[in-house]
Amino acid sequence: MDLNVTTLSSLSATIVRKLPLETTYLDIKDASDGWLAIREMVVRGAPAIAIAAALSLAVEVYNLENYNGTPVEAASFLAGKLDYLVSSRPTAVNLSDAATKLKEVVSKAAAAAASNCQDVFQAYIEAAENMLADDVASNKAIGSYGARFIQNQQEDRTKLSVMTHCNTGSLATAGYGTALGVIRALHSEGVLERAYCTETRPFNQGSRLTAFELVHEKIPATLIADSAAAALMKDSKVSALIVGADRVAANGDTANKIGTYSLALCAMHHNIPFFVAAPLTSIDSSLSSGKEIIIEERSPKELLNARGGLGEQVAASGISVWNPAFDVTPASLISGIITEKGVITKTGTDDFDIKGFIKRAVGQCIA
Amino acid sequence: MDLNVTTLSSLSATIVRKLPLETTYLDIKDASDGWLAIREMVVRGAPAIAIAAALSLAVEVYNLENYNGTPVEAASFLAGKLDYLVSSRPTAVNLSDAATKLKEVVSKAAAAAASNCQDVFQAYIEAAENMLADDVASNKAIGSYGARFIQNQQEDRTKLSVMTHCNTGSLATAGYGTALGVIRALHSEGVLERAYCTETRPFNQGSRLTAFELVHEKIPATLIADSAAAALMKDSKVSALIVGADRVAANGDTANKIGTYSLALCAMHHNIPFFVAAPLTSIDSSLSSGKEIIIEERSPKELLNARGGLGEQVAASGISVWNPAFDVTPASLISGIITEKGVITKTGTDDFDIKGFIKRAVGQCIA
Repeated sequence: MDLNVTTLSSLSATIVRKLPLETTYLDIKDASDGWLAIREMVVRGAPAIAIAAALSLAVEVYNLENYNGTPVEAASFLAGKLDYLVSSRPTAVNLSDAATKLKEVVSKAAAAAASNCQDVFQAYIEAAENMLADDVASNKAIGSYGARFIQNQQEDRTKLSVMTHCNTGSLATAGYGTALGVIRALHSEGVLERAYCTETRPFNQGSRLTAFELVHEKIPATLIADSAAAALMKDSKVSALIVGADRVAANGDTANKIGTYSLALCAMHHNIPFFVAAPLTSIDSSLSSGKEIIIEERSPKELLNARGGLGEQVAASGISVWNPAFDVTPASLISGIITEKGVITKTGTDDFDIKGFIKRAVGQCIA
Repeated sequence: MDLNVTTLSSLSATIVRKLPLETTYLDIKDASDGWLAIREMVVRGAPAIAIAAALSLAVEVYNLENYNGTPVEAASFLAGKLDYLVSSRPTAVNLSDAATKLKEVVSKAAAAAASNCQDVFQAYIEAAENMLADDVASNKAIGSYGARFIQNQQEDRTKLSVMTHCNTGSLATAGYGTALGVIRALHSEGVLERAYCTETRPFNQGSRLTAFELVHEKIPATLIADSAAAALMKDSKVSALIVGADRVAANGDTANKIGTYSLALCAMHHNIPFFVAAPLTSIDSSLSSGKEIIIEERSPKELLNARGGLGEQVAASGISVWNPAFDVTPASLISGIITEKGVITKTGTDDFDIKGFIKRAVGQCIA
């Protein structure tokens, strides 16, 4: 996502459906515009969706004139708009999490002594802006921790080639990226020889979005077919793999874009470290393992037609299609989970101690 | 390939570039037409190319009027035409092998006592027709041996689901198929629950050609993205994998369409048997292992643009591409090599005894 929030008088979202052929900015003036941009996949990527929703309402509130309600009415007005925004993508966890947090903020502001409706609106705008700033800071921390950890693991720390899958960059987050953030950090530290991005069938997030970001950032990069990844690993061309996460279970099993599991199996066979890069908010402690993650199936059209289902017919008429959006990579295949608080590893054990890590990380914050 | 050779007065080749959206037949009247059809990828698939070339010259010869040369001149005329046909795809081993065999036939016919030029032409036509018949018979034997072997391996022999990659059916061979021939045989024996075909990026031979053949044959079949294969295996949905071969080395290492190696690694991890189905002519005993196989790289356009490089731009401008045509699957990942003389296995050892198998198979033929 590439947001122009300097003034908050208007918010622009890059139309990712048109990328990489065209870069178009769409003005987002209110929650309705935000809702539509999310619903129509103009904005995609779990963190980007949450931030775009929050900011779209911030723009609306900033431009609101002649609002005469009480603080409690203002809070209720905002909560209603947030519920409406969540309905644009009801299954997006980050979006509903963000809405819950923002509702708490406005509810507190409304309850504060001597508040007026403008105080409530101002509290909302600040919280939305902080959300954006926090997401970028969190991504940069992921990049920094990941880059350091990967370098420390390698014999030759000055020539690293890293493979990634799908899009986890500034077009999926508030502005820096998770897995792509680590690649960015390695590049800015001058140790990245090459990034390899997979095409990421069937929606081509790799060849369209990740390739676009890598070229834009002038990072030496090569695009491969998903199925060429194993051959590249065999050629000793890959120092590490880094992918994002849709959701991480309490034991470290990770749901991510379809194809991630295959890459992890191939990496394991070639003794190449395989990392998941994700903020702690992607860890869902309510899921004991990946077996509890339900995999969404997407439209057969994504395989039958070009341009993610919108273009001309490619495949034979009448063929059935199985098109899962995600797969689950078991923790056993994952070398480490790179978070904004450090890298969760399996030091001395076969399992990740994710709960312990979070406890220590939160402890640090309190201390 | 779908050849209309009933009269040999004209030869038709399905224009596979137009499949699956259109089925068009192209009349092949002579070697020039054959050369062009091969060069322009109207006919593809190693065995199909060889047969199409041989038959195109057979049609020309059949319609030749007023040829007044000596038998030796006729043989020389045919040899020249065969060399010309080989130049359409100089790296295609089956094509040059076929040309060599046909040259021997006409050379022998010319040397025979009391021969005339018509005897030489007739010998050529018969040899070309036999080549077609032999290829179909060889494929059917592969199908039959493979189907029996796979059933014998399974606990439940009545509900088999088989995954395949790329296209190895009647559009790549003279008319039945190698890996797809085994699937055809399983289906005709009533034990195939479902065939899974991969999209086979970047040229989509799976979604275009294999899916077309499976639908056409009314075989229950499902198309998946290449990168969804591992998730499907994890779901215990796959009884066996069967792929074709571009070339098999003396130790069993197999070069095949890019992505085969990744599928073999995933199959191994899930304890699913992985078979190569190929005629003995695909075994190149001069190569001691797969390390000696040089992998051709294809145009970056296949990943950058739709329709195998001919369509609209898909990927970001300026991105580098690595687009290998094939990869090499080591023999260690292969459960058996299904040939027209039976299945080569590793019974009691970690290695294939391919030379021993061929010796015994040839011995059977002599006996």
